[in-house]
Amino acid sequence: MAGYDYDAAFCPHYHHAAELVGRRWTGAIIRALLHGATHFSQIRDTIPDLTDKMLTTRLRELETEGIVARTVVPESPVRVEYHLTDKGRGLEQAVRALNDWADHWLVAGQDQPH
Amino acid sequence: MAGYDYDAAFCPHYHHAAELVGRRWTGAIIRALLHGATHFSQIRDTIPDLTDKMLTTRLRELETEGIVARTVVPESPVRVEYHLTDKGRGLEQAVRALNDWADHWLVAGQDQPH
Repeated sequence: MAGYDYDAAFCPHYHHAAELVGRRWTGAIIRALLHGATHFSQIRDTIPDLTDKMLTTRLRELETEGIVARTVVPESPVRVEYHLTDKGRGLEQAVRALNDWADHWLVAGQDQPH
Repeated sequence: MAGYDYDAAFCPHYHHAAELVGRRWTGAIIRALLHGATHFSQIRDTIPDLTDKMLTTRLRELETEGIVARTVVPESPVRVEYHLTDKGRGLEQAVRALNDWADHWLVAGQDQPH
């Protein structure tokens, strides 16, 4: 399998992944999609302080990255749905790991694990 | 254990963790520290295009977050070392998960896994 091993101190692909997932709001959007939100308003209302404009921008970026797929449902009125692709769902492990870390170290402002 | 379960569509602690690790350069700095870099120049030289000023800023943020510890070694000349705290090392699982995702989906610009 082409690629590299984890032992490399720097990896451009990992660097891109960390900066992509870490982009402001993106981590929360991916989590909301993993949690089953599919409509624009569902995603927006899940995440406090997220504006329509920012959500639109982030969803477009995630579509460009092949992480989110946008589907137009031909009903009347037309409906638009957002779903994680396989590539997007592949981020669940990282989302869970960050979630576990946050739960272990950040809940109740602990500096010690609880 | 206080906290919340993963099923919540939004979690402020997870949100903070994703934005912290995802902050520009931070993911790469944590990886370099996990890989054994301890001196400022070692970390800086591991990560292409990272400036002294940006590394200084990010290390200070990570110290404030309790993720990195700065140690002054009283030799002549004095030496400064940076190490991940337990809280910092707790991010390894997330770093590995992002690394695995990147290796699986980003190496060689694949949109299909390889």
